[in-house]
Amino acid sequence: MPDDDLLHFEDLIPGQVFPLGPKTVTAEEIIAFASEFDAQPMHLDAEAGKNSILGGLAASGWHSCSMMMRMMADSYLLRMAAEGAPGVDYVKWKKPVLAGDVLKGETRVLDGRPSKSRPGIGIVSFRHELRNQRGETVLESENPVMLRRRAVEEAAQ
Amino acid sequence: MPDDDLLHFEDLIPGQVFPLGPKTVTAEEIIAFASEFDAQPMHLDAEAGKNSILGGLAASGWHSCSMMMRMMADSYLLRMAAEGAPGVDYVKWKKPVLAGDVLKGETRVLDGRPSKSRPGIGIVSFRHELRNQRGETVLESENPVMLRRRAVEEAAQ
Repeated sequence: MPDDDLLHFEDLIPGQVFPLGPKTVTAEEIIAFASEFDAQPMHLDAEAGKNSILGGLAASGWHSCSMMMRMMADSYLLRMAAEGAPGVDYVKWKKPVLAGDVLKGETRVLDGRPSKSRPGIGIVSFRHELRNQRGETVLESENPVMLRRRAVEEAAQ
Repeated sequence: MPDDDLLHFEDLIPGQVFPLGPKTVTAEEIIAFASEFDAQPMHLDAEAGKNSILGGLAASGWHSCSMMMRMMADSYLLRMAAEGAPGVDYVKWKKPVLAGDVLKGETRVLDGRPSKSRPGIGIVSFRHELRNQRGETVLESENPVMLRRRAVEEAAQ
């Protein structure tokens, strides 16, 4: 995609909403992720999950975050002049994400400001929320993302 | 492992430290994770990484978190009577994690308190830090973890 067609810092408006998902979470995916990164019993085995306070075979919280990242990429991030993120303000894993759940939600633009240290960059705060097929919020998070600034790029040409 | 041998809420002491890593981050792992969850150019291609502000083929921030989770599991979490986590207080991705980096660090126990809503559970706050082979901090995070309480289990028997 030509750089001009990407969404830049100036193109994002507070209140703007991008949809996330839907994404069906399979037992196979839960177990594959947990086997590599988070081999706790409730993420590997349905029986162990039932006997835990999570109530079933449950995705690692980091797997839920990674699945949300994929939804973000598919929805908007790959159409943005994004330069990564300095971190995450918070993540709330509000309900277990269980095998068979269907997740969807949205990212909302909160606000933006030019970077003090990088003249070509603006920092935009996003708020993300995912809900399951019963409408229960399973994940909430906010994080800042670095985007290239359109005006500065044009001025430099 | 018999449940009695697992570390319970009462066994963790503020200031206690558990080592994390070392873990060598390969280009293949960076690209595999990004292909599934975070297909931004700087996580997929060395040239695109060099041309980004990350300066090289760089792990997705969520991949860094997931690798840290694996180090936590290997170091201590699988020896704990852990019942998952309600969330993450913050994550700071302070420096890029690049192909070839060797990560290590530690988890420090900050404090603990009994859960108000779950009598058999205590909540322990952990602070995590990972550094690269140059001693630069690449990731900082804090999060609360739910652990079963030893005393309550014994009282119930």
